[in-house]
Amino acid sequence: MGTASSGSRRRAATSPPAVAVLRIGHRAGRDPRLSTHLALAARAFGAERMYLHPPDPDLAARVAAVSGRWGGGFRVVGAEHWKEVVRSFDGPVVHLTMYGRPLEAVLPRLREARHVLLVVGGAKVPPDLYRLATHNVAVGHQPHSEVAAVAVVLARLGGVPGPGAWPGATHEIVPRARGKRVRPARKRP
Amino acid sequence: MGTASSGSRRRAATSPPAVAVLRIGHRAGRDPRLSTHLALAARAFGAERMYLHPPDPDLAARVAAVSGRWGGGFRVVGAEHWKEVVRSFDGPVVHLTMYGRPLEAVLPRLREARHVLLVVGGAKVPPDLYRLATHNVAVGHQPHSEVAAVAVVLARLGGVPGPGAWPGATHEIVPRARGKRVRPARKRP
Repeated sequence: MGTASSGSRRRAATSPPAVAVLRIGHRAGRDPRLSTHLALAARAFGAERMYLHPPDPDLAARVAAVSGRWGGGFRVVGAEHWKEVVRSFDGPVVHLTMYGRPLEAVLPRLREARHVLLVVGGAKVPPDLYRLATHNVAVGHQPHSEVAAVAVVLARLGGVPGPGAWPGATHEIVPRARGKRVRPARKRP
Repeated sequence: MGTASSGSRRRAATSPPAVAVLRIGHRAGRDPRLSTHLALAARAFGAERMYLHPPDPDLAARVAAVSGRWGGGFRVVGAEHWKEVVRSFDGPVVHLTMYGRPLEAVLPRLREARHVLLVVGGAKVPPDLYRLATHNVAVGHQPHSEVAAVAVVLARLGGVPGPGAWPGATHEIVPRARGKRVRPARKRP
């Protein structure tokens, strides 16, 4: 009992870390959809921003339009120099790679942090990244998707957000067993 | 180590359901990457197959090559008629949509099932799908990505697989704090 209640207190006292995502190796001209999915998944599961290298103002604007409708403060920030983002970040830098250590081994450390940066590469990952990262972490040790990796880490850190309008939203979804229902967001007290 | 052994115990008591994914509205000519990421995420987090509508033999072959190297029985199965896949499935059919009921409300039912079909649409979801599905389920009530949605549901149902070669693999990753290490897969006893 003592252990359980001290566990509860600890959880009540500490909120999940503020998470930012850094996407390296975006190919704006070729196909923005994967980076768009990455940004939207980061936003939906509670990240605060995504740094995008190289910058893509069109993508940033599309994601800003999503935040305008559905709320929250998430934004895409263009990054000309990804190493500067990594070096200046005030918290653990977590490079997500199938070659890294198991996520479960690193999660306790991440939960203690106030800020976490999740870094994902594109087709070619700069070798420097393995050295500059605080942790190289595998979300499973199989090839898959940076979208999946970021979503699973965020879901493990902060959980999957429940229903309800986000701050600043103009619209919100009313969960339904069948069909779709969207209504104007109600002001929160 | 502690995590791995508690995971084994849990799995021994009640094994997670066998999961298949159905991807509707794939656009083979335009951009196969999102469906490829979806298939690889489904495979990496333990799904047994992905039905792909419309069929895309090139994509299926690329994913088969991944399974050839990294093991496991996952495969992409072309589906000319998606409704037949839904109607003939022997278990709950779970349409993942931001408009549905919260994942947490439905997870206990899914954990009891022996087979689960996760259905994700593309840009346009056929309205019939809302009616034909057993459950319409939201992984968060915000727009994001079918790749993220499938990955999070699979991670919640079966956990994130740990290191070690999969059956039939020719290669396996040795987790490392820095850099990459791949070795020929060792035969399992």
